[in-house]
Amino acid sequence: MIDSEVVRALMRRKSIRKYKPDMPSDEVIGAVVRAGMQAPFASQLYSVVLSKDRKRNAFGAPLQFVVCADCHKLRLFMRERGWGLVSNDLTMLLFAVQDASYMAQNMVIAAESLGMGSCYLGGALGVAAHLKKQLGLPGKVFPFVMLAMGYPAEDPPVRPRYPIDFVLFEGKYPRLGRKEVRRAMEAMDAYYLETGYYRNLNAKIRLEKGRRETFTYDDYTWTEHISRKWGQWHPDIGEQLKQLDACGFNLTEKKRKRNKKNRK
Amino acid sequence: MIDSEVVRALMRRKSIRKYKPDMPSDEVIGAVVRAGMQAPFASQLYSVVLSKDRKRNAFGAPLQFVVCADCHKLRLFMRERGWGLVSNDLTMLLFAVQDASYMAQNMVIAAESLGMGSCYLGGALGVAAHLKKQLGLPGKVFPFVMLAMGYPAEDPPVRPRYPIDFVLFEGKYPRLGRKEVRRAMEAMDAYYLETGYYRNLNAKIRLEKGRRETFTYDDYTWTEHISRKWGQWHPDIGEQLKQLDACGFNLTEKKRKRNKKNRK
Repeated sequence: MIDSEVVRALMRRKSIRKYKPDMPSDEVIGAVVRAGMQAPFASQLYSVVLSKDRKRNAFGAPLQFVVCADCHKLRLFMRERGWGLVSNDLTMLLFAVQDASYMAQNMVIAAESLGMGSCYLGGALGVAAHLKKQLGLPGKVFPFVMLAMGYPAEDPPVRPRYPIDFVLFEGKYPRLGRKEVRRAMEAMDAYYLETGYYRNLNAKIRLEKGRRETFTYDDYTWTEHISRKWGQWHPDIGEQLKQLDACGFNLTEKKRKRNKKNRK
Repeated sequence: MIDSEVVRALMRRKSIRKYKPDMPSDEVIGAVVRAGMQAPFASQLYSVVLSKDRKRNAFGAPLQFVVCADCHKLRLFMRERGWGLVSNDLTMLLFAVQDASYMAQNMVIAAESLGMGSCYLGGALGVAAHLKKQLGLPGKVFPFVMLAMGYPAEDPPVRPRYPIDFVLFEGKYPRLGRKEVRRAMEAMDAYYLETGYYRNLNAKIRLEKGRRETFTYDDYTWTEHISRKWGQWHPDIGEQLKQLDACGFNLTEKKRKRNKKNRK
């Protein structure tokens, strides 16, 4: 079995939703963020805004980072050099979300190695405009995920993943038949049922549009949970476009042309 | 100084552009990908397509992964459960790029711990439609980055980053004045000049639209390099929208409505 200290640490990782009140020292926070920054990047298109307000932070965590795709600092130094940002907002966004994601994931791993736990919170995507106001974000800064962090007050089991042959493909992407799909579903669902995961969290997602509930916690699984999210939530692309637009990323061709005109 | 084995490993990390011909064993590849998969996720919206063809891979690396934001597998198991994907393509894309980025960054770190090096290649974004054909990607799979990997045949120095107070902000995003911006630029540029980084790579980016070259490798720096990228490349959002559209992610409101009609 191929292995390393680091691989073992990565394999042990789980999200933490209960935290001790202890505030990590500035040195610990600095080490985590600095290790984050050392991740590979396209152009260091990232910022993190830290809240130490346990009353406001998710799970009462001592630390909560708002992770931002940041093209503002790029613009500032381009201006110093006599350049204007010409690349379109969609390409920039896709590079910046990567830069910031690689950084955040390094932070997650660094934190674990220093005895802390963490949990990503995907909700930022839908309230980006609100976060912009709250945190005073300048234009071209898109807060896309939050990261709670601190010393863990729980030790949950490691959660399962798909079988590796449902993720790693060699040469070409294969045709995935019902057999492969059902096997991947079962690999996930068995664990959640056995451990009573959703029962313990009381986390069944409500059915909308008059759909009748036929599931109990005896058969409510990970794939059912995920299906209810993506089968019901965020139908309106206009809403997501608006959140991005409020943060200075205009993803529609029409808008881009109007903006071009305004600049002249 | 706060520290850990893992933090030191993260801080040592650098991109590798020269590889030994040795092919990593299937066990090593499996450990790397499996450690990647254990990263936190929204819905495991990721796939990696591996090429072991050194002649085709960047830098002649023995391994090259095409990292994909993958909502196809989600759709397959939702269908098994009697659900249809309702969430809009932009929100899905933003979640999926995160899932796949967290996974890829875990792979980078796992690989280092097993003696390998790696390098991200951002070019996938602009040739996604081509990669889709080449790799037989189904709809709702967007290849957004490539990752070269193998045993390193070079040992370059670690590259610098912004000062931490240009990235980590507490409470609010500050107003960044010229002083802060110039200090961040110098932190980056000094290293690149001192080590002759761009001279050694002979990597000056060509000036377009009749702009006259006034820089030599004596004053061509990181911020100049980056400014030439984002000040000249990828002006057309329509091109990026087209690449996404070819992969089944329709980011325009108009298109979404048309698709809705077709589905009825």
